[in-house]
Amino acid sequence: MNDIPYRAALIVGAGPGVGAALARRFSADGLKVGVAARDAQRLAAIAAETGAEGFAADATDPASVEALFEAAEAKLGEIDVVVYNAGARIRGPLAELDPEAVRRAFDVNAFGGFLVAREAAKRFEKRGRGALFFTGATSSLKAYAISAPFAMGKFALRALAQSAARELGPKGVHVAHIVIDGVIRDAGRIDPADATLEPDAIADAYLDLLRQKRSAWSFEVELRPWSERF
Amino acid sequence: MNDIPYRAALIVGAGPGVGAALARRFSADGLKVGVAARDAQRLAAIAAETGAEGFAADATDPASVEALFEAAEAKLGEIDVVVYNAGARIRGPLAELDPEAVRRAFDVNAFGGFLVAREAAKRFEKRGRGALFFTGATSSLKAYAISAPFAMGKFALRALAQSAARELGPKGVHVAHIVIDGVIRDAGRIDPADATLEPDAIADAYLDLLRQKRSAWSFEVELRPWSERF
Amino acid sequence: MNDIPYRAALIVGAGPGVGAALARRFSADGLKVGVAARDAQRLAAIAAETGAEGFAADATDPASVEALFEAAEAKLGEIDVVVYNAGARIRGPLAELDPEAVRRAFDVNAFGGFLVAREAAKRFEKRGRGALFFTGATSSLKAYAISAPFAMGKFALRALAQSAARELGPKGVHVAHIVIDGVIRDAGRIDPADATLEPDAIADAYLDLLRQKRSAWSFEVELRPWSERF
Amino acid sequence: MNDIPYRAALIVGAGPGVGAALARRFSADGLKVGVAARDAQRLAAIAAETGAEGFAADATDPASVEALFEAAEAKLGEIDVVVYNAGARIRGPLAELDPEAVRRAFDVNAFGGFLVAREAAKRFEKRGRGALFFTGATSSLKAYAISAPFAMGKFALRALAQSAARELGPKGVHVAHIVIDGVIRDAGRIDPADATLEPDAIADAYLDLLRQKRSAWSFEVELRPWSERF
Repeated sequence: MNDIPYRAALIVGAGPGVGAALARRFSADGLKVGVAARDAQRLAAIAAETGAEGFAADATDPASVEALFEAAEAKLGEIDVVVYNAGARIRGPLAELDPEAVRRAFDVNAFGGFLVAREAAKRFEKRGRGALFFTGATSSLKAYAISAPFAMGKFALRALAQSAARELGPKGVHVAHIVIDGVIRDAGRIDPADATLEPDAIADAYLDLLRQKRSAWSFEVELRPWSERF
Repeated sequence: MNDIPYRAALIVGAGPGVGAALARRFSADGLKVGVAARDAQRLAAIAAETGAEGFAADATDPASVEALFEAAEAKLGEIDVVVYNAGARIRGPLAELDPEAVRRAFDVNAFGGFLVAREAAKRFEKRGRGALFFTGATSSLKAYAISAPFAMGKFALRALAQSAARELGPKGVHVAHIVIDGVIRDAGRIDPADATLEPDAIADAYLDLLRQKRSAWSFEVELRPWSERF
Repeated sequence: MNDIPYRAALIVGAGPGVGAALARRFSADGLKVGVAARDAQRLAAIAAETGAEGFAADATDPASVEALFEAAEAKLGEIDVVVYNAGARIRGPLAELDPEAVRRAFDVNAFGGFLVAREAAKRFEKRGRGALFFTGATSSLKAYAISAPFAMGKFALRALAQSAARELGPKGVHVAHIVIDGVIRDAGRIDPADATLEPDAIADAYLDLLRQKRSAWSFEVELRPWSERF
Repeated sequence: MNDIPYRAALIVGAGPGVGAALARRFSADGLKVGVAARDAQRLAAIAAETGAEGFAADATDPASVEALFEAAEAKLGEIDVVVYNAGARIRGPLAELDPEAVRRAFDVNAFGGFLVAREAAKRFEKRGRGALFFTGATSSLKAYAISAPFAMGKFALRALAQSAARELGPKGVHVAHIVIDGVIRDAGRIDPADATLEPDAIADAYLDLLRQKRSAWSFEVELRPWSERF
């Protein structure tokens, strides 16, 4: 049964945690699913586990992202759900950070999100519908010491999501930013205290968003474990 | 079928819009429902329409709120979902506002929320579970000119919700603040453009929250029509 | 020398810390100063120490606040700077808080601010100038567990300040909200590490605001010790 | 007379507006001043007008920023005030933006800020003092439609400033983020209504920050014209 008014999803940045859970849950709810990542081996594992189509792509490269959308639509038909889920944590005291690593962190955390949003906008805008979701983190809202590069990227991604929501919302595109405020549980780890975010429970929140009627859309949703301090 | 891990809800501040929709949807999903309001006639209408039990109560009076919870649990059994949905809009230039009206607005918008949260806390804390939701508005986050009293109350209610989430979350109680950022559609009004928030679509968001697993709870969720400027 | 484009200030809620420092600094910079508080003895001490006029008044009583402004202008001439500096901390678990104490906390933290803003608005609006400042706290922006009543009042005061800024700013009135994010040093205490906010340093920030030209006004300013975590 | 507890300032990103005003005001208050920009002609004009030393540098190039700090300290002695004031506005619908222009906008708005912060951190940290200020904009806090690249950069710069404040504050370095919320007046333009921000009035706010005692530092300050809507 598919009570979700969308047909095919592309998840960019698919690791064994949230990305895999999104693929699994979206498939279980009747969506066709494509997953994209740079690492071919990791991609094969997720595709095998979730039944999703795997697409090797570099989210930080404009041509690669264009090719990704073309390949995904060729294989899955019209994509109407896009999730940008890539991220790269880089930490260190300001004086010791490597400039190239900082630029690279920005590319993965934010510039890739822009490239993906751009391809989604090209398609969703003319169709007058679609869902474009971005995965945020605690660092999307607060920039901690020794954590500038990650926060710079996540703040930038939130700016992109806000701007996209204001531009594309009135054109029928549901843009959302999901702030994951806590530690995500590793695949296969047991945590009976639920002090870490279960990837499947995170994926449920994305599904809830996909089911929202356009008269009451959420733009920003935060998720955290019940016992998390904030 | 009831896939919601709660059994009985008390909705305080039940008008024909969101309050009635919550009662209707909660009932449809298998919860026992009580609605509370000061106006006996309005209450009777909602109870009749939704099948909920009606309880006359003044949310701004400590004794009345205590009696409300006792009467509701006597009638419906243990309440494990409480929604504070009352509100009062008062507007006017600062120099012209009537002090008594401002105090009254605070009582309805925020003090009543505290009294209801207090009774909920007494019960949920020792049971180690429960859901306590607060209905917010655009004015919960931004205080407009000529709108100080409403914003003062809604900011205060958000403070209450935040504090309650930090105190009661680690005790197993799911506290959430839903920001309704737009005009709520009047009951029976037709709005094919969906430029106003349909009360049933709002109620869906509360139900989504009730279904969340404790490893990934939302505290704050905003809802607005797709075409709304923000 | 008075390089401040104002002539007389009324500080409502004047304790031995920030209130006294404001009175002292404002006087030193050439302003006439009135201080208002409920406690006659405390008031006398501050008046004696700072050379300010003392006015006994209950900031939570509409008639008393009206009388205060009349008395202050009778004594000092036209008041063009008003600071609301009163506050009351009440803490406790939600289930154990006394409703009357919570209502009282709101009265002191926010309703009094409204009454004072209302009297200031009556005067400043028709004169097309004036400065109306509100003293905030960490709890103006974040509501901690076991601290709901204080946060409810401080959030509400911030809403009042925002609304007042939007209403009165375009009429020539400078409204500002100063967030004191840390522990204020007790009068006479020595703290060579500067881990607490020195009241005189806080007062300097208010003076900086009074000196701002209208082409570049600040509405919200936060102050914290250099070593404070935030 | 120099009542400012600093000796030499380096302003990176110096145009005819805020950059020139900062140079002029800092000099007038007794600081030695260096200004850095890519455009040699513009730089010469500002240096000539303000008496500051001009340094040609590309703020987005790590080696150039390292060389800039060395040259500036060789010429002016120890720099203890650094302002990152560069910015680049790029606008356009998401689907039409040029990826390379977006990356370039990030480089100027945020990556350059990081490089400058990194050189400042190297010096200030070991000396246990210094001031590091960042110039923000309306888009630092809110990302408008058709304005994603600028907002992405400005959000990222704010993240950098927050992270730097948390890392370097407890080491004695005053980090601040000044949000200029309005249109900056063009040099030489007359605006008797003060509906635009006068660069000199903006510079005053930076000077106020430099004079703050460490027991009461501001991190974030917003500036807007009295009549500006917000």
